[in-house]
Amino acid sequence: MSLLARTVAAIRPPDEAVMRAARERQDSLTKPPGSLGRLEELAVKVAGITGQVKPRLNRMAVFVMAADHGVVEEGVSLYPQEVTVQMVANFLQGGAGINVLARHVGARVIVMDVGVKGETRALRKKIAPGTANMARGPAMTREQAVAAVEAGIQVVEAELAAGLDLAATGDMGIGNTTASSAVCAALTGEPVEAVTGRGTGLDDAGLAHKRAVIARALEVNRPDPRDPLDVLAKVGGFEIGAIAGVILACAARRIPVVIDGFISGAGALVAKGLAPLSREYMFAGHLSAEPGHALLLKHLGLEPLLNLNMRLGEGTGACLGMSLVAAACKIQSEMATFAEAGVSQAEER
Amino acid sequence: MSLLARTVAAIRPPDEAVMRAARERQDSLTKPPGSLGRLEELAVKVAGITGQVKPRLNRMAVFVMAADHGVVEEGVSLYPQEVTVQMVANFLQGGAGINVLARHVGARVIVMDVGVKGETRALRKKIAPGTANMARGPAMTREQAVAAVEAGIQVVEAELAAGLDLAATGDMGIGNTTASSAVCAALTGEPVEAVTGRGTGLDDAGLAHKRAVIARALEVNRPDPRDPLDVLAKVGGFEIGAIAGVILACAARRIPVVIDGFISGAGALVAKGLAPLSREYMFAGHLSAEPGHALLLKHLGLEPLLNLNMRLGEGTGACLGMSLVAAACKIQSEMATFAEAGVSQAEER
Repeated sequence: MSLLARTVAAIRPPDEAVMRAARERQDSLTKPPGSLGRLEELAVKVAGITGQVKPRLNRMAVFVMAADHGVVEEGVSLYPQEVTVQMVANFLQGGAGINVLARHVGARVIVMDVGVKGETRALRKKIAPGTANMARGPAMTREQAVAAVEAGIQVVEAELAAGLDLAATGDMGIGNTTASSAVCAALTGEPVEAVTGRGTGLDDAGLAHKRAVIARALEVNRPDPRDPLDVLAKVGGFEIGAIAGVILACAARRIPVVIDGFISGAGALVAKGLAPLSREYMFAGHLSAEPGHALLLKHLGLEPLLNLNMRLGEGTGACLGMSLVAAACKIQSEMATFAEAGVSQAEER
Repeated sequence: MSLLARTVAAIRPPDEAVMRAARERQDSLTKPPGSLGRLEELAVKVAGITGQVKPRLNRMAVFVMAADHGVVEEGVSLYPQEVTVQMVANFLQGGAGINVLARHVGARVIVMDVGVKGETRALRKKIAPGTANMARGPAMTREQAVAAVEAGIQVVEAELAAGLDLAATGDMGIGNTTASSAVCAALTGEPVEAVTGRGTGLDDAGLAHKRAVIARALEVNRPDPRDPLDVLAKVGGFEIGAIAGVILACAARRIPVVIDGFISGAGALVAKGLAPLSREYMFAGHLSAEPGHALLLKHLGLEPLLNLNMRLGEGTGACLGMSLVAAACKIQSEMATFAEAGVSQAEER
């Protein structure tokens, strides 16, 4: 049995009994029932995932997957392709947005090169130096798609020794909103127009061109919407596959995982396609300003935690979301009950 | 000149030149321009407030103001009045929601008793043991209203020695959504129905009764909407006045201040009434589930940072908001520029 098949087979539903116990504890804490809103729901969900009524999420990591995209030769991004390798160096030096926000929330940053064009000093599972141009044929082979997902599984497995209570996904790769829109259109059946935006800042003409390129890629490759690996191989990216792998590994290990924006969302669609139960382990860190993201989250059945008009990727939105999930679990674990604090409860009317 | 008058007179507009320099720095950081959305706006606003292009918000405090309300004898809350004194004890023992969230974000909690009925061990500026019943006459005298606002100013001034880079407001007081709705209706001119909700969890009959009590309080007292101290005195509360004072003191000292939910919002309306410029120093931590809060924020001209269906008060929403404001300033201060990191910028088209 392959690593991917074993991982998918290991995913179980959340523990309903623990969720009931967590809900009971919430109602015993010194606050009006329900008054902490979504924080209460988050804590109950994490309880079900981890099997612990008082989950502690002390060790957090954001997994940033980096790769390049052959489709950039069609002129779909404002930034030159070498920015991928440059930004990976920036991540490793601690100067990027994700580094600052990860430090802020107390998470470590794990950067993996799963297909950057050019040399990097990141963790290395390079499937190939960038995908092929999906506008002319498949982005990768099916074997490469499996290898990309398994790279994501392996990096999570490797991090378990250091301790991992809460994970987040992130991405880097010039051109990857183009691949993500194609994956999203193929897996959800939504029209290309609805799931394609300006990425790093295209103008109207650039956006129209990007949409035409995606439509061509879908027509040339005809990915099978019932086969997530076929979609990933034909119109995806190595980092999108690796993000799917991170999510599947977290689900198999009962670790809550916070999904970043549009590219991570495409990875989450692939993960959900491969293992529908994996959705129960996902949290949507934020709603991206990338316009297809709201639709994508609807297909995942997830409500975003934050809506700050962000569209940087790298895991930045997921990082801030992790802090809210951790806060919710501290409420669950650390707040005094009415009995402990000697506080009177609501009067019956 | 009174402390209140001196404080109001000290409030200056934010520094536009520093804001321009902060915006320029944002566009030099290694990310597509605008891609961090509201985080970028937050950093620029804090720069204007503090006069620093790279603001550091290391020392954070949440000011929780506690007081009781005579109007509870009309039966407007599900919880008995002694819960105020019990919850203040819970705050001081570190077991309440605000304690957990303040620890999570790295803020200290300052609890001040400005009018609790019964003895507490909080910082003590007790104006009176609870307000009078506003359904029968004014909640307090005008002198008491000034004293409440000045208590809030004084607690901020006293904290400056310990260092204060970012503040948040919070509240405790059984019955205080009733007073806050009355203050909000009086100062904004909105109908009582639009700004009155279920508080800690009233049913339909309880809500109708609460609205009738507020309407009666407004009719009995006829507060002058152009005179915020008159509104505070007739239908407000000591903690609402003290929250207004915290905000005014922060504005005078150029310290950004994150406003919590509905009760803190009523305090913010009083502060804005006394010193319109104080609004420039405010951040709305979250959108409360209390239905009048959205309307209240519209009158303040503030967009909430979070929307997590919370309605606990105590400063809990503001605390989480503080962490986002601090994160935004770290982005501004700590991220590498394109030049520093050797990353290529977008191509001209």
